[in-house]
Amino acid sequence: MASISLSLPLAETPEDIRSIPQDESPLSVARRLAERFARTAAERDLRGGTPKAERDALRASGLLALSIPTVHGGLGADWRTTLDVVRVLACADSSLAHVFGFHHLMLATARLFGSREQWQALFEQTSRHRWFWGNALNPLDERTLAHPRGAWLEFSGQKSFCSGALDSEMLIVSARHADTRTFLVAAVPTQRSGIAIADDWNNFGQRQTDSGSVTFERVRVEHHEILSNPGPLSSPFACLRPLIAQLILTNIYLGIGEAAFEDARHYTLNEARPWPASKVASTGEDPYILSQYGEFWLGLEAARTLADRAAAGLDKAWSRDTRLTATERGEVALAIASAKVAAAQTGLDICTRMFDVAGARATHGELRLDRHWRNLRTHTLHDPLAYKIREIGEWALKRTYPSPSFYS
Amino acid sequence: MASISLSLPLAETPEDIRSIPQDESPLSVARRLAERFARTAAERDLRGGTPKAERDALRASGLLALSIPTVHGGLGADWRTTLDVVRVLACADSSLAHVFGFHHLMLATARLFGSREQWQALFEQTSRHRWFWGNALNPLDERTLAHPRGAWLEFSGQKSFCSGALDSEMLIVSARHADTRTFLVAAVPTQRSGIAIADDWNNFGQRQTDSGSVTFERVRVEHHEILSNPGPLSSPFACLRPLIAQLILTNIYLGIGEAAFEDARHYTLNEARPWPASKVASTGEDPYILSQYGEFWLGLEAARTLADRAAAGLDKAWSRDTRLTATERGEVALAIASAKVAAAQTGLDICTRMFDVAGARATHGELRLDRHWRNLRTHTLHDPLAYKIREIGEWALKRTYPSPSFYS
Amino acid sequence: MASISLSLPLAETPEDIRSIPQDESPLSVARRLAERFARTAAERDLRGGTPKAERDALRASGLLALSIPTVHGGLGADWRTTLDVVRVLACADSSLAHVFGFHHLMLATARLFGSREQWQALFEQTSRHRWFWGNALNPLDERTLAHPRGAWLEFSGQKSFCSGALDSEMLIVSARHADTRTFLVAAVPTQRSGIAIADDWNNFGQRQTDSGSVTFERVRVEHHEILSNPGPLSSPFACLRPLIAQLILTNIYLGIGEAAFEDARHYTLNEARPWPASKVASTGEDPYILSQYGEFWLGLEAARTLADRAAAGLDKAWSRDTRLTATERGEVALAIASAKVAAAQTGLDICTRMFDVAGARATHGELRLDRHWRNLRTHTLHDPLAYKIREIGEWALKRTYPSPSFYS
Amino acid sequence: MASISLSLPLAETPEDIRSIPQDESPLSVARRLAERFARTAAERDLRGGTPKAERDALRASGLLALSIPTVHGGLGADWRTTLDVVRVLACADSSLAHVFGFHHLMLATARLFGSREQWQALFEQTSRHRWFWGNALNPLDERTLAHPRGAWLEFSGQKSFCSGALDSEMLIVSARHADTRTFLVAAVPTQRSGIAIADDWNNFGQRQTDSGSVTFERVRVEHHEILSNPGPLSSPFACLRPLIAQLILTNIYLGIGEAAFEDARHYTLNEARPWPASKVASTGEDPYILSQYGEFWLGLEAARTLADRAAAGLDKAWSRDTRLTATERGEVALAIASAKVAAAQTGLDICTRMFDVAGARATHGELRLDRHWRNLRTHTLHDPLAYKIREIGEWALKRTYPSPSFYS
Repeated sequence: MASISLSLPLAETPEDIRSIPQDESPLSVARRLAERFARTAAERDLRGGTPKAERDALRASGLLALSIPTVHGGLGADWRTTLDVVRVLACADSSLAHVFGFHHLMLATARLFGSREQWQALFEQTSRHRWFWGNALNPLDERTLAHPRGAWLEFSGQKSFCSGALDSEMLIVSARHADTRTFLVAAVPTQRSGIAIADDWNNFGQRQTDSGSVTFERVRVEHHEILSNPGPLSSPFACLRPLIAQLILTNIYLGIGEAAFEDARHYTLNEARPWPASKVASTGEDPYILSQYGEFWLGLEAARTLADRAAAGLDKAWSRDTRLTATERGEVALAIASAKVAAAQTGLDICTRMFDVAGARATHGELRLDRHWRNLRTHTLHDPLAYKIREIGEWALKRTYPSPSFYS
Repeated sequence: MASISLSLPLAETPEDIRSIPQDESPLSVARRLAERFARTAAERDLRGGTPKAERDALRASGLLALSIPTVHGGLGADWRTTLDVVRVLACADSSLAHVFGFHHLMLATARLFGSREQWQALFEQTSRHRWFWGNALNPLDERTLAHPRGAWLEFSGQKSFCSGALDSEMLIVSARHADTRTFLVAAVPTQRSGIAIADDWNNFGQRQTDSGSVTFERVRVEHHEILSNPGPLSSPFACLRPLIAQLILTNIYLGIGEAAFEDARHYTLNEARPWPASKVASTGEDPYILSQYGEFWLGLEAARTLADRAAAGLDKAWSRDTRLTATERGEVALAIASAKVAAAQTGLDICTRMFDVAGARATHGELRLDRHWRNLRTHTLHDPLAYKIREIGEWALKRTYPSPSFYS
Repeated sequence: MASISLSLPLAETPEDIRSIPQDESPLSVARRLAERFARTAAERDLRGGTPKAERDALRASGLLALSIPTVHGGLGADWRTTLDVVRVLACADSSLAHVFGFHHLMLATARLFGSREQWQALFEQTSRHRWFWGNALNPLDERTLAHPRGAWLEFSGQKSFCSGALDSEMLIVSARHADTRTFLVAAVPTQRSGIAIADDWNNFGQRQTDSGSVTFERVRVEHHEILSNPGPLSSPFACLRPLIAQLILTNIYLGIGEAAFEDARHYTLNEARPWPASKVASTGEDPYILSQYGEFWLGLEAARTLADRAAAGLDKAWSRDTRLTATERGEVALAIASAKVAAAQTGLDICTRMFDVAGARATHGELRLDRHWRNLRTHTLHDPLAYKIREIGEWALKRTYPSPSFYS
Repeated sequence: MASISLSLPLAETPEDIRSIPQDESPLSVARRLAERFARTAAERDLRGGTPKAERDALRASGLLALSIPTVHGGLGADWRTTLDVVRVLACADSSLAHVFGFHHLMLATARLFGSREQWQALFEQTSRHRWFWGNALNPLDERTLAHPRGAWLEFSGQKSFCSGALDSEMLIVSARHADTRTFLVAAVPTQRSGIAIADDWNNFGQRQTDSGSVTFERVRVEHHEILSNPGPLSSPFACLRPLIAQLILTNIYLGIGEAAFEDARHYTLNEARPWPASKVASTGEDPYILSQYGEFWLGLEAARTLADRAAAGLDKAWSRDTRLTATERGEVALAIASAKVAAAQTGLDICTRMFDVAGARATHGELRLDRHWRNLRTHTLHDPLAYKIREIGEWALKRTYPSPSFYS
């Protein structure tokens, strides 16, 4: 990744982004942005809604082109780097990491489900215009139908959990064909007539992801906007799409866990007082506080190591392109499944137990340190962990790979 | 307890309380109040501050005299009943349960640390005037000093974590004697000149407990207001005070756990949809959802059984009065410690995992179902669970009872 | 229970049993026996096979008539007392507790499935002749068939897991009717012609339970030996039978957990040395050893409290006789299920972790302290814990009671 | 590792080893040996004592020279390969893996504590004569003293837990200098006059490791046999010795966990029957069995990934030689500590829970499947996990590396 560098048309970027050296690495840019986002994360968690300034900072940073090959105007990063950036952002603000990660998932969706003509054009325009992509694909919400109208299709209905649709330039949209029930996926401009994006996301976690609902009212979708060649989940390679989604989630979970860990450390070292019965001079000598930190670290290390290994596996599978076999895809699926469960479990554990070591003062309202638990708790409900563990168990016992679906 | 009945001067009570039958049991009154409090609990969690209307409803209900012997105008309930009421209230609103439980703890403090003349008068006035007591005793905050001024003592300094001090009629206050460093406990009217109660509690949980700070500026405290005969922790019987505190916490934790459990049930049965891979027709048939409910129930049952046993032990110890031996007190301490750890652990577990069975819709912001975790997480930091487990371990290994302190 | 006393024909009893005072309580007798059994438990665990001397000591003690009403020559103990004796014996030797507990289960089987004439006669003969009953009922092993031969039935086939069949005087046997597939249960003398009991139990735990196989070769079973009036699981009251089995298991598990705990204590206090990095003078000061003992104790206390509550519930249900409703039976089933899961989980935990606190010397081969884990691990496979938790979950979520079966 | 091949003087090797192709990789040789050892592992677990035939097979295989550089006649394997071989052997027989791994630890001890002249000679003789090294270093047993006798030192006293000393050609021995209390480490021939190795190891696990006691009675040890230049734990590089020990333990734990997992699979797939209440046709469809396998796999994957990462770190540190800094050594220490705790915890979990999925038949005595738990439980007491977790916690909270000692 040493060769990637950013080349920003700096004129339109905010002050502190403008000072980014021309040859800074993406991870370094991400860290700089993360530092900025972290300063206001608690306040924005309270506010909810669209983090417009931060989304624009992401646009200005050039990182929206991170996963796009350089030949198409992007930064050409591999998945490992893209996911590292997601994790760094998540440690500062898991909502921004979410919409950023899913932006790259939408690009991967075009790449995996669409034709070369389609994704090349979309990649180039995304690079050039710094498009931010939003998600309106939710496969479990089948209320949107595509009615054939000869030269085009007419999409009507609703979609829930459309993260990042507000303030986006492009959407990945799904619908069932009204006649054939075929599952269709399209890439359409957010401004397309008939698309209405509600500002109705108000959940207790991931509050700035705008994961609300989108309404399609007789939206005209051209045939060339349908990603049907090769189409959704049409080959082992196309089936990498849900795996990328799962590994993005994994890295968001990990980033949240790391943030909770670091916030706990700050309070243990600087604010907490030793418990009288402990007979120690500082919290850093308390045997039970130390053992809890040991357990936190062990959990994070295991999840990190599994996540990094999974990212390497994904990059290898990605490079295989359409030669990827079902077996190779199955191996990546298992590696990602293990990483995801580990990241979710250890993260939830730390987000609750961080207060046992940080002390009662860390519950002060203005710190909003409960947001780590709220964010992770909300996001880990994306798909049930119990079924992810079962998938791993099917392999462990019977050597059968997960059946590809939008969640496996 | 069948003989206890409430006799309310109904003129001054709100409408729905006014309809309470004259011979209703305290637990039945508590359930009626709880139902009322539950309706607004989410909204008041958002608002924070003093739940004035609900505190007045508690005053009107007569339950503030619950633990006061009938001979002194109270309802004469035993601890088991008083704690059952705490648990019922906590299931509806853990903030109100907290200030209600601690009100009775303040009465017990007068009873255990003060002279017969003192507590009789305080009990009778509390019954007659429906006083609500607040807490300003925090023994870990040693900033308040008592300066001898001949006929009286002058209290100056601060106290933090003073739950229920705002909107109270009476306070239990502690201070260090400026010369002797003796730990003094006094019962003083909240309106006493020089006492300033800040409206500065803004933590992420137990948001309507007003657990903020109190400032004493040259407050005149009479010698007869000092609870020095027999005085704080002066005998095994007086040492029941911290045990009562711990068992109140236990029942609040349990009530929160039960509330989380019931809210989860509502969503699993009415809102959640079966996961596609489960191949079941309803969430109620999902094997992993069922096993999680089994684990929740098992945890609650164990905590409930331990808490009920501990309450019976407390009542027995309480009836022993000053004949209570250190060994008998030690047995109660162990029973309460076990119940408390069980209630805290199972409660935290359910408050997080409830969403795995209730589904993503249960994270909707307006439901504020995250408040169960926020309330329990905040309150379980009262004193470290790790040291409570250690205390139990000292007994288990070496047959030594917990050394009495304000936390053991 | 204060009124129960033993009246032994002392002539035929071993030396140390002979000295039992005539008015000793059953629990006291059990403790005396337990002390004796404990001395040789490790050596007999190595040997396996039938603990003939100890079985005879149980016969001589009179405790085989413990649960038989006094009017039928027994000691008239309630279930709580009978189960307490099982637990005391299990703490010394879980194999003996197993065959002793199941002996009383066989008596209860006669009581619940048979007619008054049947069980009265069997109870009286058991009391008079100090019969030891064995188990050949395994409902999952359907290889034994009952062929109608006019005046009698002919049992042929096999049964596995027949605990305590060897060296027994009577057996409870089950078979499927060859024509109707009806499930039949009979009480027959072990010496009946055609019954062959193999000495083939050689598993790694519960090694002296003789839980091997029994072969029936054209065994003549009279109609009056069939317990068909009211018959197996024929009413809520008859359905107490599997619950008694489950609660016997629970108390055996608890006894093993208590034995492991006490053995660990002995080694921690007397043999283990403090770890150099702990900087403490004795193992009893090590913070991590103390916290582990705290967790052990908490687990045991929860399981004990749940088991005692379940026993009280069983006694109450038992006293309801055939008036027992399905709902009342359901409540007992749930209480026993919770106790069983708690006892199994905490016991397995302690049996493994006891060595973390007892130190490496406790692994010395001659101590055979691994037998606690081996015994509990073997016995907790009687029926899957996962399905017991599921049953509890069915109640917790949907308020449905466990469907009565031989395991629920 | 592709370039390593074995060149055995086949004349003296057993039949099935003799057929090893000349260019087989060490891991392939190890797998072949493992297969052979596995066949008799249960029977030898019963027998205990010295596995003479298997030790000779290890000698014949050439693997005793695995970690010795090729220039000194060895196979030149890196630590990753050596540890992989330990893991493969542990999956078949954890006792043999233990003495094999510690043999290489003894060689590393010579390398790290001794002078170039010392270790070169020892390496070459070990390669040439196929020496098997044993351990008599136990630093916690300080009963052995070294008395200066001018031209030599006289070792007298005892050492416990001397794994692999019986049937060894060479020993690593430690003693305190009688006058200076300096900790001395020497490499001496096992046959040296005055050394008596007791056949007194009879613990419930790791039964064929001969971890008994050694008595030194006025044993003459030459100054050139003392590894004092640079000496024990004399530099960050020398301090790799305890880390190698810890990572050998880690891989043994992992191998045992993998063996338990595979044995469980065999029984679940081939012997266990579905539980009636599960309503599934085969155990492989049982949702609770599948989730348990998922958890087993997840645990093994995390431990494996951490162990492999730690081995890579060790190899890198090893290659740094005496340039290794305390910081670099600290990083390896942390990586190994995490891997060790993960391997121990997941292994113990699987060794107990394997029976929940394998079914009651898997407890049959002749299978001796309890040996996995017995072996792992015994070996994981080498040094307390609680203090390993604390070490990790010291780093996690305070960024301090573990203080080097013989256990850290």
